[in-house]
Amino acid sequence: MTPQLTEFFEFLRFPSISTDSRHKDDVRACADYLMQKFTGMGLKPELHETPGHPIVIARSEVKAGRPTVLIYGHYDVQPVDPVDEWATPPFEPTLKGDKIFCRGATDNKGQHFSHMLGVEETIRENGELPVNVIFLLEGEEEIGSPNLAPFLKAHQDELKCDICAVSDTGMIGPGIPTMTYGLRGIACLDFKIHGPTLDLHSGVYGGAVPNPATIVSRIVASLHNPEGVVRIRGFYDKVVPLEQWERDMWGSLPDGNAATLAETGAPGLWGEAGYTALEQRWGRPTAEVNGIGGGYQGEGSKTVIPREAMAKLSFRLVPDQDPAEILQLAKAHLEATCPDSCRIEVELGHDGPAYVMDPHSSYGKAAQNALRIAFSDEPRLIREGGSIPIIQSIKDILGVDTLLLGLALPDCQIHAPNESFTVSNFEAGIRLNRALLEELAK
Amino acid sequence: MTPQLTEFFEFLRFPSISTDSRHKDDVRACADYLMQKFTGMGLKPELHETPGHPIVIARSEVKAGRPTVLIYGHYDVQPVDPVDEWATPPFEPTLKGDKIFCRGATDNKGQHFSHMLGVEETIRENGELPVNVIFLLEGEEEIGSPNLAPFLKAHQDELKCDICAVSDTGMIGPGIPTMTYGLRGIACLDFKIHGPTLDLHSGVYGGAVPNPATIVSRIVASLHNPEGVVRIRGFYDKVVPLEQWERDMWGSLPDGNAATLAETGAPGLWGEAGYTALEQRWGRPTAEVNGIGGGYQGEGSKTVIPREAMAKLSFRLVPDQDPAEILQLAKAHLEATCPDSCRIEVELGHDGPAYVMDPHSSYGKAAQNALRIAFSDEPRLIREGGSIPIIQSIKDILGVDTLLLGLALPDCQIHAPNESFTVSNFEAGIRLNRALLEELAK
Repeated sequence: MTPQLTEFFEFLRFPSISTDSRHKDDVRACADYLMQKFTGMGLKPELHETPGHPIVIARSEVKAGRPTVLIYGHYDVQPVDPVDEWATPPFEPTLKGDKIFCRGATDNKGQHFSHMLGVEETIRENGELPVNVIFLLEGEEEIGSPNLAPFLKAHQDELKCDICAVSDTGMIGPGIPTMTYGLRGIACLDFKIHGPTLDLHSGVYGGAVPNPATIVSRIVASLHNPEGVVRIRGFYDKVVPLEQWERDMWGSLPDGNAATLAETGAPGLWGEAGYTALEQRWGRPTAEVNGIGGGYQGEGSKTVIPREAMAKLSFRLVPDQDPAEILQLAKAHLEATCPDSCRIEVELGHDGPAYVMDPHSSYGKAAQNALRIAFSDEPRLIREGGSIPIIQSIKDILGVDTLLLGLALPDCQIHAPNESFTVSNFEAGIRLNRALLEELAK
Repeated sequence: MTPQLTEFFEFLRFPSISTDSRHKDDVRACADYLMQKFTGMGLKPELHETPGHPIVIARSEVKAGRPTVLIYGHYDVQPVDPVDEWATPPFEPTLKGDKIFCRGATDNKGQHFSHMLGVEETIRENGELPVNVIFLLEGEEEIGSPNLAPFLKAHQDELKCDICAVSDTGMIGPGIPTMTYGLRGIACLDFKIHGPTLDLHSGVYGGAVPNPATIVSRIVASLHNPEGVVRIRGFYDKVVPLEQWERDMWGSLPDGNAATLAETGAPGLWGEAGYTALEQRWGRPTAEVNGIGGGYQGEGSKTVIPREAMAKLSFRLVPDQDPAEILQLAKAHLEATCPDSCRIEVELGHDGPAYVMDPHSSYGKAAQNALRIAFSDEPRLIREGGSIPIIQSIKDILGVDTLLLGLALPDCQIHAPNESFTVSNFEAGIRLNRALLEELAK
């Protein structure tokens, strides 16, 4: 056990579960620990109260003429249920081979703590950092960061920076440096189909009246053609096609089709014709039904024609689709597809645009150089299919791009029992931080 | 108040709710009342115990060479909830104008009691009946007649008859004699679509994997073409087309399209092109989804790709469709429509064939003559869209057709608060029984 690992284990032991009010004091104790640690490192920490859990800020000495780097992370963790499925106590870090098992090990304590240790090493060795650094560590990421955007707005000036760096995304595989330069956006809506004014006897009326469950199905089925292409008029109009270098890069990664099958357990793939699974997941927009319901869903049979049925849809978006416009196009499609014999009610939900930064920009290149140094391998450039609202908030409020330099391995089990982080990635994270600050200073 | 009405009210006051164990003694008291009444009429009653509520049988004196008529009814009633919505106490018969309000007034006490009083009148006036009569009154119709078919099997010989008569169906309108000569059959199945082995993040995997809710929708949508025609191969192969006299007869009834809209409150009609609503409901087979479900159906959004989704289907059948064959054809269609990327699981449910008797047979004509005499109007010949399993049991076990001579009016509110039966129909029922037995004797 190195002193750094010992310290990391100490940090991991705080059961900082943000969603569980019984752990409110543990979350705060974890924030207090960070305050002490930052002070010990030579940074100036600030603890900011919020209506929920505190936000910890820590700044290095500001030197004019140097770029300012914001490093974001979150010290809160997911709950540990089902606790029976943990092989070791969830908040007692346990080293087995290269793996450290503990809740929060990868998500996100291990990833931002290695950045902290990188900064500490640099200051200890050089007396100063090559750039100005602001750490921003929140305690509410696992509950949707309700207080982060308001905090960013309120402290816009104090948080002014040139670039943001976040290690909270994934790596393609062990030892393979990975930079995520894009995330998909999202747009959600619910719709309900109203038919008869009451549930009908399907014998007495069946055959002559609209069945809302049938109509919902016909509408959901209308979202894709048999080749998996979304049939909403105008849906693809603003989609920026994948560039050849992206398709080449992703094509060079370990087989994404096989990985998608293995990870999901689905009997087969199903998606837009002409694209690989990775392209479909990272670079193409989707229309998915997240929930559908109507009529009798219990045991046995109840022969009703339900008076209503519903579906919840979400669209994953890519540059340059406009979420608000997509919602309007989808609404128009649903309304046009609903027959006159039913009434449709569409309720628009939350949305957010896709995020993409240019990996060939100077900051992007600096990040890749840092990854190359930390891992001694050529960085892979990927996008991810999900949305990270924080990154969009940073872009919108602070006006800067984010370098997504993830250290999560495919088998790290975040949000699940037996979460782990490897010692290798812990150490690589320290190297990555040191190299990143050097490269960004150039 | 005539003595007959006074007696009817007495019968109505028994709260013979078969589904509610707190009313077990009331159901039995009602059966005992029938026993006494039959004895007083000069019939020989028998009370048969079952694992549930008793079956009451009553026989007239058997005269050789005369046809035997089985008259079926049920003395049990539906629960009265919501009791607040009743304008008068549910088990205190209340006369307002021509209407008698009471639970069970139409369904089915009023309808079979008028047959009993018809028999009583005939015996009083003539000393005998023109035919042999067996009354079969059960106390479990509202809970699905679980003990009726076993009883019929066990007493096949004692229940041997030539024709059955049942007043438990509807009339087109007040004063319009109506004979139901056909009922649709039914075949039910459930199916489930399995995709990924767990609910997936729709951002991470969306676009590359099958979404079971989408697949269920595509399969349900595949059941009909845009003209409402069922697309299952072979589905219509054995369907006996409607005869011209049927279409003419139904076309002469009060506007069925308007009635269907008014009764269901649907914004419009939706069904097989080329048929009226009454033809669709009474004479054409259907494919309906009675329930559909998958993924997140609660408040707000949860962006998952559900690991499974399900639907419950039922088919209403017409002569000469074979329920078992239809289920196999449907299963084959579902399996063929499910893409290889998912696994489909089909579970076949209960089924029963359509019922139809020839209204132009001698018994059919006798019934129409009786209706003509009782109502002084030309009988209308209809079918109904639902299934009445009892009628099929009588056909299968006793080998006889059933004359369905309903006295229920469209606004009689069976199964709902403020159920009513009209004095006019009560009296018409007595006349109907007398005329029916006369006509069947010819």
